[in-house]
Amino acid sequence: AIPGVPSEMEAMTRGWIAEKIRENSAGIAIIHRKIRTVGIIESVLYEKIADLIDPKSLSRKDIKIGVAFLPSWKGVDLRITAIGQEEERARQEIDVLEGKISERIGKYIYGHGDDSLAHKVGDMLREKGLTLAVAESCTGGLLGKMITDIPGSSDYFVGGITAYTNEMKMKQLSVPEIILEKYGAVSDECARYMAEGAARNLGADIGVSITGIAGPTGGTDEKPVGLVYIAVAAGGKTGARERRFGNDRERNRERSAVMALDMIRRYLLAI
Amino acid sequence: AIPGVPSEMEAMTRGWIAEKIRENSAGIAIIHRKIRTVGIIESVLYEKIADLIDPKSLSRKDIKIGVAFLPSWKGVDLRITAIGQEEERARQEIDVLEGKISERIGKYIYGHGDDSLAHKVGDMLREKGLTLAVAESCTGGLLGKMITDIPGSSDYFVGGITAYTNEMKMKQLSVPEIILEKYGAVSDECARYMAEGAARNLGADIGVSITGIAGPTGGTDEKPVGLVYIAVAAGGKTGARERRFGNDRERNRERSAVMALDMIRRYLLAI
Repeated sequence: AIPGVPSEMEAMTRGWIAEKIRENSAGIAIIHRKIRTVGIIESVLYEKIADLIDPKSLSRKDIKIGVAFLPSWKGVDLRITAIGQEEERARQEIDVLEGKISERIGKYIYGHGDDSLAHKVGDMLREKGLTLAVAESCTGGLLGKMITDIPGSSDYFVGGITAYTNEMKMKQLSVPEIILEKYGAVSDECARYMAEGAARNLGADIGVSITGIAGPTGGTDEKPVGLVYIAVAAGGKTGARERRFGNDRERNRERSAVMALDMIRRYLLAI
Repeated sequence: AIPGVPSEMEAMTRGWIAEKIRENSAGIAIIHRKIRTVGIIESVLYEKIADLIDPKSLSRKDIKIGVAFLPSWKGVDLRITAIGQEEERARQEIDVLEGKISERIGKYIYGHGDDSLAHKVGDMLREKGLTLAVAESCTGGLLGKMITDIPGSSDYFVGGITAYTNEMKMKQLSVPEIILEKYGAVSDECARYMAEGAARNLGADIGVSITGIAGPTGGTDEKPVGLVYIAVAAGGKTGARERRFGNDRERNRERSAVMALDMIRRYLLAI
């Protein structure tokens, strides 16, 4: 039993409990590695690497290797575990397996362990010396929040416009009235104008936008709750994607923000 | 043992487990009520109501009454529990105690049970027919995210400007350059201009702003990490508050956003 106060629990675990467990398991090496993917669903990911993680391909005399799929709305993590008597051997086997997995699905991998997508995107922006602005509708600030969760994000993030009304989309993001009339605020066209408006009006290299129907109300047969358009404008070009993220307001807002980050990542990697 | 998949666990608990527990505890009434407070720390809250929740004042022959303090960065919840044989009696005792507590600390109470502060503020805005705009710096969109967590927030929320640079503060929120030069972006003066700029430029009745040093870097002796200024502009008047929320980036951003919501609540209640 350890205290419920998080900071106390953490200090005791790190300082003492972990050490005790290590002592008690001397002679056994358990190595974990977490590979983080985004933009691909669990079942498709599984199909792509099924042969690599088949028990037969992983079978070794001296070492036990397993791969677990850890899906969440942020993406799917692959956790590779190797258990053996020699740490070095376990690590080698993980390296080999990771190499093979990366070869197959490399473009979906954004990091390892506790890496966050926002952090990775931020590092890439800083490295390339590019700045970012966001235009949000249904996410209401969530994307900006996720970007600025990262310390030092002021190096590349200039800011954002949350345009919850059509008027704000026109006035702050220069979306033409005719676009809103003809296609509606939740449309591929509006998303593109929003991303371009954010980049231009806020003076950033890259503009990214999200517009959708978060729900629970506001959906129609043609434009159901969960329908979202995400666009990235940069270097004179704009790309947009449509997604249907389902009925849960919180979930589809989160998935939209993650997808926007992934679209920036893909743009920066020229995928 | 119940399944780990949240939706399955929830369905089983609601549909069957709760019922079983109820059957097994027939004849005992356990009544809980959670009173939610914001803007007052646990120790001060305790002092204000210590005599009311003293075991002596709560002592009854037929009923056991207890009060637990549940502090979090969102505020302090008071959970009143009454255990007895008659549900009606238990409820009565809770009503009486709640009445006394409300009399003392009513202005800090924003709701009950699962009420969220953003929800309460939203209901008040809708009722009064007022609209809201936000101007964020260090919170990067978090305040807008919290406001738009609430379904139907488009009834009163027009949108926001996240101004992470001085240039954006000037261009999008009309903060005068001289203010930024003289007082800096993290200042009472800048917060006021930001709130006023948000209301005026976005065409809302109420503008609220947050500017601070989220950390971990960027602090100085004079302006340490965690220093934040929050302002509310409405009806031709602007009020601002200074707070020092400590070193934790995530925590001080969350506390700033909660305080901004509480300042709107207090403005609407004319506290």
